[in-house]
Amino acid sequence: MTPLDLAIRGGTIVTASDSFIADIGVRGGKIVQISETIENALETVDATGLMVLPGGVDGHVHLSQPTSDGTVMADDFESGTRSAAAGGNTTILPFALQEKGRSLRQCVTEYHEKAEGNCLVDVSFHLIVSDPTPQVLGQELPALVKDGYTSFKVFMTYDDLMLTDSQLLEVFEVARREKALVMVHAEGHDAIKHMTRKLEESGKTAPYYHALAHSEIAEREATHRAISHAQLTDIPIVIVHVSGRDPMEQIQWARKRGLKVFAETCPQYIALTKDDLQGLNMDFEGAKYVCSPPPRDQAGQDAIWEGLRDGTFDIFSSDHAPFQFQGSNNTGKDNPNARTSFKWVPNGIPGVETRLPILFSEGVSKGRISIERFVALTSTNPARLYGLYPRKGSLVVGADADIVLWDREKTATIRQQDLHHGADYTPYEGMEITGWPVRTILRGKTIMVDGEVTGSKGDGAYCSREISDFI
Amino acid sequence: MTPLDLAIRGGTIVTASDSFIADIGVRGGKIVQISETIENALETVDATGLMVLPGGVDGHVHLSQPTSDGTVMADDFESGTRSAAAGGNTTILPFALQEKGRSLRQCVTEYHEKAEGNCLVDVSFHLIVSDPTPQVLGQELPALVKDGYTSFKVFMTYDDLMLTDSQLLEVFEVARREKALVMVHAEGHDAIKHMTRKLEESGKTAPYYHALAHSEIAEREATHRAISHAQLTDIPIVIVHVSGRDPMEQIQWARKRGLKVFAETCPQYIALTKDDLQGLNMDFEGAKYVCSPPPRDQAGQDAIWEGLRDGTFDIFSSDHAPFQFQGSNNTGKDNPNARTSFKWVPNGIPGVETRLPILFSEGVSKGRISIERFVALTSTNPARLYGLYPRKGSLVVGADADIVLWDREKTATIRQQDLHHGADYTPYEGMEITGWPVRTILRGKTIMVDGEVTGSKGDGAYCSREISDFI
Amino acid sequence: MTPLDLAIRGGTIVTASDSFIADIGVRGGKIVQISETIENALETVDATGLMVLPGGVDGHVHLSQPTSDGTVMADDFESGTRSAAAGGNTTILPFALQEKGRSLRQCVTEYHEKAEGNCLVDVSFHLIVSDPTPQVLGQELPALVKDGYTSFKVFMTYDDLMLTDSQLLEVFEVARREKALVMVHAEGHDAIKHMTRKLEESGKTAPYYHALAHSEIAEREATHRAISHAQLTDIPIVIVHVSGRDPMEQIQWARKRGLKVFAETCPQYIALTKDDLQGLNMDFEGAKYVCSPPPRDQAGQDAIWEGLRDGTFDIFSSDHAPFQFQGSNNTGKDNPNARTSFKWVPNGIPGVETRLPILFSEGVSKGRISIERFVALTSTNPARLYGLYPRKGSLVVGADADIVLWDREKTATIRQQDLHHGADYTPYEGMEITGWPVRTILRGKTIMVDGEVTGSKGDGAYCSREISDFI
Amino acid sequence: MTPLDLAIRGGTIVTASDSFIADIGVRGGKIVQISETIENALETVDATGLMVLPGGVDGHVHLSQPTSDGTVMADDFESGTRSAAAGGNTTILPFALQEKGRSLRQCVTEYHEKAEGNCLVDVSFHLIVSDPTPQVLGQELPALVKDGYTSFKVFMTYDDLMLTDSQLLEVFEVARREKALVMVHAEGHDAIKHMTRKLEESGKTAPYYHALAHSEIAEREATHRAISHAQLTDIPIVIVHVSGRDPMEQIQWARKRGLKVFAETCPQYIALTKDDLQGLNMDFEGAKYVCSPPPRDQAGQDAIWEGLRDGTFDIFSSDHAPFQFQGSNNTGKDNPNARTSFKWVPNGIPGVETRLPILFSEGVSKGRISIERFVALTSTNPARLYGLYPRKGSLVVGADADIVLWDREKTATIRQQDLHHGADYTPYEGMEITGWPVRTILRGKTIMVDGEVTGSKGDGAYCSREISDFI
Repeated sequence: MTPLDLAIRGGTIVTASDSFIADIGVRGGKIVQISETIENALETVDATGLMVLPGGVDGHVHLSQPTSDGTVMADDFESGTRSAAAGGNTTILPFALQEKGRSLRQCVTEYHEKAEGNCLVDVSFHLIVSDPTPQVLGQELPALVKDGYTSFKVFMTYDDLMLTDSQLLEVFEVARREKALVMVHAEGHDAIKHMTRKLEESGKTAPYYHALAHSEIAEREATHRAISHAQLTDIPIVIVHVSGRDPMEQIQWARKRGLKVFAETCPQYIALTKDDLQGLNMDFEGAKYVCSPPPRDQAGQDAIWEGLRDGTFDIFSSDHAPFQFQGSNNTGKDNPNARTSFKWVPNGIPGVETRLPILFSEGVSKGRISIERFVALTSTNPARLYGLYPRKGSLVVGADADIVLWDREKTATIRQQDLHHGADYTPYEGMEITGWPVRTILRGKTIMVDGEVTGSKGDGAYCSREISDFI
Repeated sequence: MTPLDLAIRGGTIVTASDSFIADIGVRGGKIVQISETIENALETVDATGLMVLPGGVDGHVHLSQPTSDGTVMADDFESGTRSAAAGGNTTILPFALQEKGRSLRQCVTEYHEKAEGNCLVDVSFHLIVSDPTPQVLGQELPALVKDGYTSFKVFMTYDDLMLTDSQLLEVFEVARREKALVMVHAEGHDAIKHMTRKLEESGKTAPYYHALAHSEIAEREATHRAISHAQLTDIPIVIVHVSGRDPMEQIQWARKRGLKVFAETCPQYIALTKDDLQGLNMDFEGAKYVCSPPPRDQAGQDAIWEGLRDGTFDIFSSDHAPFQFQGSNNTGKDNPNARTSFKWVPNGIPGVETRLPILFSEGVSKGRISIERFVALTSTNPARLYGLYPRKGSLVVGADADIVLWDREKTATIRQQDLHHGADYTPYEGMEITGWPVRTILRGKTIMVDGEVTGSKGDGAYCSREISDFI
Repeated sequence: MTPLDLAIRGGTIVTASDSFIADIGVRGGKIVQISETIENALETVDATGLMVLPGGVDGHVHLSQPTSDGTVMADDFESGTRSAAAGGNTTILPFALQEKGRSLRQCVTEYHEKAEGNCLVDVSFHLIVSDPTPQVLGQELPALVKDGYTSFKVFMTYDDLMLTDSQLLEVFEVARREKALVMVHAEGHDAIKHMTRKLEESGKTAPYYHALAHSEIAEREATHRAISHAQLTDIPIVIVHVSGRDPMEQIQWARKRGLKVFAETCPQYIALTKDDLQGLNMDFEGAKYVCSPPPRDQAGQDAIWEGLRDGTFDIFSSDHAPFQFQGSNNTGKDNPNARTSFKWVPNGIPGVETRLPILFSEGVSKGRISIERFVALTSTNPARLYGLYPRKGSLVVGADADIVLWDREKTATIRQQDLHHGADYTPYEGMEITGWPVRTILRGKTIMVDGEVTGSKGDGAYCSREISDFI
Repeated sequence: MTPLDLAIRGGTIVTASDSFIADIGVRGGKIVQISETIENALETVDATGLMVLPGGVDGHVHLSQPTSDGTVMADDFESGTRSAAAGGNTTILPFALQEKGRSLRQCVTEYHEKAEGNCLVDVSFHLIVSDPTPQVLGQELPALVKDGYTSFKVFMTYDDLMLTDSQLLEVFEVARREKALVMVHAEGHDAIKHMTRKLEESGKTAPYYHALAHSEIAEREATHRAISHAQLTDIPIVIVHVSGRDPMEQIQWARKRGLKVFAETCPQYIALTKDDLQGLNMDFEGAKYVCSPPPRDQAGQDAIWEGLRDGTFDIFSSDHAPFQFQGSNNTGKDNPNARTSFKWVPNGIPGVETRLPILFSEGVSKGRISIERFVALTSTNPARLYGLYPRKGSLVVGADADIVLWDREKTATIRQQDLHHGADYTPYEGMEITGWPVRTILRGKTIMVDGEVTGSKGDGAYCSREISDFI
């Protein structure tokens, strides 16, 4: 028999439902064998004592996106996918963002150009629909779904992105016809604007007040509204980056009634609280933690853990949206605008590299969730939800050999200096982690080992996607 | 001792909590005595065997309002208050509607002119805010509240009336500062428009489809949204004309969290269902039942009864909004527009005269609610909620002698020919009623007896109001 | 006109739904008139500036009951009713307790003998059924209901009182047939015994551990069980002395399903917590607070207030069950048994005199409930629930002139030395009160004024009762 | 390389989370390889077009148990395990029943004797504790848990089996100390007896009335009580054979509060309703459907499906309890006792052979649940819950080669003549099934193929068990 390309030996293989000790054999970038013993391979990796998991699939990543003020994000496809690889991921799903007034197809083409040849892990694109013209609704979206872009994202806030309720309903109708899955950023725009103005009027302009302006009430209201629109148009939706108990209860209520509402949460909602936005004595350090929705409080974190355990959350993503803190460009701390009001601080924090260690350490190592549930939340479910399964998302024969080896015992401290993203800080600086990814393998090739990225630009490929498994 | 003006003798007096047999003595239009026996009165009414209740207070009545297409409602202040008197009411609260682009104060003045000298029962005005300009928000509303107009109404749908979320929040802020109470017509505008277009596109234009276009989902969503805005701005609100279980559960959920959300329902939600909109074989007869929100189904009626019993509903109003069915004017059945789509059928049905008999018969006579609860829902609570208590709303010493005598045993059939409103039909034609008001007394003067209206234009006065008891 | 016996002038009369200033006229022990002005009376009480409320009806009082160890309670009918009068009550409902092995009718006769000629306020008896023999079920109970003893009480714990589930169901069947109302002491016997043994085994014998032995879980479980039995046999029930959120939620859940479950709570659940049972450093002072169910924690108190506000609770009673703390008799602190284990400490605290001031002060004066709701909870509802209305429970023409005048401004500190009960301590010692009853009038006769009891033995009469208004 | 013993080729392998096409290689009764292609095996099974699932694990089976009237069940270990094999099962968990007055250890020994050498599939025993003497609690149970009997079962009804609340609590304490898992038959004994007597008294003695005597209220009450006892003693429990919405909601409520309550349901609650107990015109045919709890109605079935989908139910078992219908012995239709009252009809129906086809057909084939969820409910979860995993319950390398091949397309009609159990009827006679097990493989040996049982007595072994994975 021809030797295998690669054997991963002696580790504990984990899927979304099972854990067992076995060897994995890889040929042609695919898993071709899981056996008691595999001896005949060109390359052998000893995984004894390690956990062998499917590579992380990060369903929510922003790369090379422009922001409304002309800045671009701190990560392009190269740095972003390098950071992903370092953090144990083998596939990420960034967005192709339609700028208002433009053809969505044209925008998609441009994101392909940005990504082409630059990626260290596999990528696929969600489509951000910000301008649902008849052309986009009637022709571009149907064609794009057929071409394998099977998920849309819509925003209920942000001046340059938000859709009206009418527009949401129109996009939802297209999604029903085409069987595309819609992701919703659910925050009530007017409520946020109203609170922002009131805060500004009383001189409350520090970054901390972002957390009050983007209230949980506004998030809950928009969540309810999105669910109602989805119910009216009879489509499943994904509520992304759920931050606390209030929106979570809306999702539970909807499911109890038989509605197909999927839910995502992120590291910031279990590892940060709004107090982090206070910085030092309400100073501008707080800007490092500004994201939307903002982290809530300890009770909110407890709620999120409940949801991670009991199945309310289907997926756990990073919502990676990196900005530079230093400097006077539009996103930096010396940007004069941002100093006048929190509303000019860009919304987003980096996280693609720290997502998996944070959930592993806080969840698995601390006994809050099982390792199988970890795999489900971070790899299998995102792959199924977004139409990448069974090519991605599990360690089964026939799947891509996307594998990450974890050392359950390894402790580490998160330090900006050790990270690979383009941002110049991490909001998790100093966090103690137990359980760390020690090797990332993309379709059979080791692209990270012991913290060193060994992959190269171009290792990562674009993945066309099927209709969601969950529709 | 000077003789009393009036003695009502031998009846069973009912308040929101008590029932007992006694005589009532009236002097100067006020109740001055409740006694075992009152003999010395200029006029004596024998109420033996009858129930003696406080006159009905109808908290939701539309009179002399223009509609967007240039029509006016089928009742002006004379016919509307005559109909109210005939139906056992002594006070009604119509609206002073601000038309977009106009001064609210000016509009209020005009409604006073329409009412002045024309009313048979007492009236007071809620303020419909449709154009919250800085002038209205900053000056007119505060001044109007101080002048005794202590309640606002806002609409979340109707092109000519609706406020955006931003505007709602601004009006809510004024209400908090001025302690005004806000009534909300909660239906999601875009959801209704969306469904309307879809129905029209599939040729579903009969009046019946109004009930599908105005879905309970859209009502629930707007109810949740209104509650969220009220929570954010920390004000109590009234959700008016709640039609079924879905919006009702939102109200219950809000109260469970300690929010001050008051609720109103109406006769159409216990006596009609959406099937009534089918007319005869989906014909235009269905237009007689078009109102917003529309009646739902039997399960919805059951839910409303639950809410009437368990305290979810604070008040029971008519939402009287009468239109002519005959003729080719804008509201009539020969109006060519209305024939092309349900969306041109005016939204509203008459009900000020039948409100009390319907709830008495279906509620008290059928054993679903106690007679004390009937009094609370139809008189005491609306008076307290809208700042008319203790002048109005109960049979206590010192209150206005607004009294209605009920014959619990009297059966009647609702017939258009017997009614006094300006509409040319009643949606309750043929309904069998047990328990009927046989005498209405306004501040000591009998204005209706045995179905005959004995009051005159000008008997009714305008009532300035205090801040709501419930704030 | 013959002069009235008594006029109470110028006060604010309060019913369960209304407040208004008027005079009350009394003749023959009845309220015969409520008027703007009453001048012609033999006796006049000036109530200017005071609140005029119906006399308190205490639906849950233990007097002259033996306990299992041979002691009797610290109050007989004379001292108990004196204490009641001092605390603003005009009617109390003690229990006629059937001792196992005895005829219930015989026991009732004996309680009449104890009460006869000794009472300062009116009394009526609930029947405690502890031995439901065929004779009791088939003959005594039906006859007693016909004779005006229209409520039963059953216990789910206490060795000498508890009924098995089978017996509960049999008593419930009788209640359905006879339309008697069943009050349930709902605590799970075996769970209490189990916890007691475990606590004793680990040396936890101080009075404080009573609160752990009588867990809220055990109370909730028994509440659910009682509700289930009531549902199966199709009867309404009253869950008495509800202590916290857990049992309260069972009641709310049952009502949501349309079951007729009434609920009572008591002063100890809003004014004490289980920490009071710690005494000083876990000493025997804690025994002064031992009652069943025990007080819970602050969150439990918050829940009870929610229930008092939102209508979950229908009535607020004292569960007066007084014991002597000093001395070496069976209930005293020098009783050697009680020193060996909390389980020998008698279960019960005095409260008939402090019930109304505590709820008034903590509820009305602190703005948690309206004064009308106070009247409903403490007088009107108990009277209606237990078949005494309209003779008792409200200030309406035709009712007994049972009246209590309250000074809303009067502050006082609860002191044992000022109380009239037979117990030698009060668990509320030192509690600051705002709002105090300054005159109690029983059927027209002043029996307490400014803290001095002016009534005499024999002023109080026995009241036969009708079927509950709420069945 | 030594050839494998067995290769299963070309099928779709399904686990609780994944589906993929691959070959399985078996050596020494274990799965040693899962590969794209396995060619070198002594025996090859072509599974092309078939689903390859882990063998069914039935967590709830009664074999060779005596009943209170001296009968034994219609299946002994040979016929019972033959039937199990025919139905796609490779492991079953019958009970070792302690008869009152006897040593539990002794009873266990006797069940081993009954099973030894007679089984066609693997077995393990749950321990029914009916007489928790100090000897049993203090010595036998701890020793038995250490010996691998890690689950207890307790009954809240049946005269010969039920424990009092005190006894339940004592057994629960032992379970906590020993980490044993307790299964609870939750029905309220006294409520059932009460209803039974009432039904008998009104002449309602046909089998149908069993369904009314064993009310869902009684099941819900006991479920709440069991949960409360588990909460008090801080142990996880399994509520077995949940029949409808009421008890299910108690379980959901408990979990929402963080309690570890596991839940089982059975085929009778999705495939039968209480109307089946009517037989033909209320005749004795209804006795064929008598089991406890009884099937409920269509709404109950809908609730159970919700619970199977949303994760409320962890496992799906048969509760196989077979009796003979023909004949005059104690369980038969000519048994004179059973003719006098439903209460003498033995409680139980056969189902070990039809469990998997019914859930597959009604669940997977009809699109109500995914095939992965089917595997979780019928194999992986029972194995994990009862400490058999990873030896049993999944298709992973290292597990026992317990495999069942399913033909998704195969349709069949359930017929008694085709079944292998000892009962003389099936309650599912005539039911149309889509999806049928066509081969059962036990540790590498085919024991059933195309409906023919090819295994022999003694193929099945006894499995000692670990502590539950879920504790």
